[in-house]
Amino acid sequence: MKFVTYASPAGPPRVGRLDGETVLDVGFDGDMIAFIEAGAPIGAERAVPDARLLAPLVPRSFRDFLAFEGHLTNAYKNLGRDVPAEWYEVPVYYRSMGTTVTGPDTVLPWPSYTRQLDHELELAVVIGRAARDVRAEDWLDVVFGFTIWNDMSARDVQRRELPVGMGPAKAKEWDGSNVLGPCLVTPDEIDLETLELEVRVNGERWGGDRVSAMHHTFGDLIAYASQDQTLLPGEVLGSGTATGGSGLELDRWLRPGDLIEMEAGPIGVLRNTVGQPNRKEN
Amino acid sequence: MKFVTYASPAGPPRVGRLDGETVLDVGFDGDMIAFIEAGAPIGAERAVPDARLLAPLVPRSFRDFLAFEGHLTNAYKNLGRDVPAEWYEVPVYYRSMGTTVTGPDTVLPWPSYTRQLDHELELAVVIGRAARDVRAEDWLDVVFGFTIWNDMSARDVQRRELPVGMGPAKAKEWDGSNVLGPCLVTPDEIDLETLELEVRVNGERWGGDRVSAMHHTFGDLIAYASQDQTLLPGEVLGSGTATGGSGLELDRWLRPGDLIEMEAGPIGVLRNTVGQPNRKEN
Repeated sequence: MKFVTYASPAGPPRVGRLDGETVLDVGFDGDMIAFIEAGAPIGAERAVPDARLLAPLVPRSFRDFLAFEGHLTNAYKNLGRDVPAEWYEVPVYYRSMGTTVTGPDTVLPWPSYTRQLDHELELAVVIGRAARDVRAEDWLDVVFGFTIWNDMSARDVQRRELPVGMGPAKAKEWDGSNVLGPCLVTPDEIDLETLELEVRVNGERWGGDRVSAMHHTFGDLIAYASQDQTLLPGEVLGSGTATGGSGLELDRWLRPGDLIEMEAGPIGVLRNTVGQPNRKEN
Repeated sequence: MKFVTYASPAGPPRVGRLDGETVLDVGFDGDMIAFIEAGAPIGAERAVPDARLLAPLVPRSFRDFLAFEGHLTNAYKNLGRDVPAEWYEVPVYYRSMGTTVTGPDTVLPWPSYTRQLDHELELAVVIGRAARDVRAEDWLDVVFGFTIWNDMSARDVQRRELPVGMGPAKAKEWDGSNVLGPCLVTPDEIDLETLELEVRVNGERWGGDRVSAMHHTFGDLIAYASQDQTLLPGEVLGSGTATGGSGLELDRWLRPGDLIEMEAGPIGVLRNTVGQPNRKEN
């Protein structure tokens, strides 16, 4: 199944599913997290012409990992750091806020405080049920589905924030900094062995990788995060950037008006345009 | 005013306020965030005998800063790092999840994966209204109140996670890792110029500092966090650890059964007992 959230002219956003190109309303009153918590009950369906897709969900939280060695090697070189030995042992993550989410086909805000905006190509899992101390081999039991995550980043800010040791703060967080979509695909329709991620800017391939290249697997990530802690439906965990999935790695940089497309097999293409820099009046 | 959340035998937790030692129910149906969003409407009050206090709120999110230079100097020495020059310029923070909150008088879980559990003494502000691009001098306009935050930390884990550059992950996050309370005091009852924070373990003072010693002020923290980003009612921002507010700085370590007391003027005393290490069966 491919689930979506779409803008309903008559009220709050609603849950639908994709049938080919058609959006079918699934007959559920509530948002995607309520739908997941209810066990994804599909009622009387009806086609929604010209549905505008939003982010598949407003996550309860984001956890973002760093699972691709290729990205790390490239990125740390350009951030002026060595890959630390600890990375190979511990699947570290930072958190971000669900309130920063945006969806497909939006114009991405360029924050006032950065001159170096960048994308990050990631695969994300959405937790499907409350779970704690999940064993790595059982990870799929707690996953509702997969989506694409474009984790927009302000690299000049990241360079200033990283040395303090608290991880990225404003380097990764502003209204509209986290892009999810276009849909949420259930695990039965995903083959992680062969799934490829790709990012294109203005139609040109900038990078990508196979999900199977992850050094830390999704099982590792979920096991780590859930140690002594309950994961809840609607929490999002990201793979970290695929190799070549950021401009930082290539020393190539986004400009206002650029078209970013991220593709991941059956999830489809997450497409956004880079906005003009926000110029504050004061 | 001093607001609290208390366990109601008849239903979900309720909002109250302290009148001396007495808890008065404020006649509001909803949780603390709904109460704040509604403009803190106090209805017909009634005394609640033997009320058991919970965390004053389940935060929408936690942002934790590092504003006290004294803590940083001490802590970084014991984590084997130098204080980076960037710290003096940028009020960096990491985020944590509201779901990890616990309140006064609880037994604090000792996670299965650490041998080195530590407390952190902090002052926290709770955001009172939606706001973006807040100027530092206007910070009090967006604050509902203050509470104490004990940010429990697993130092052995933090030492492994820090070098990766994503900030603390499991070092700061498990069910019950973030303690708030005992009450939420409105700004009119707090004098930040003279307010002192203190932590005692088993009755002995381990450390503390004046809030006025913060290198980055709350105005700086709120201005930084709200750049191009909307803060929402019920979000919590912490000062970072007061000087001497952690055992790390003293190379003194908590043991199961220890009583931790954190005091901050009119907010009162946040009191918890350290639990037994969680021993997993598998």
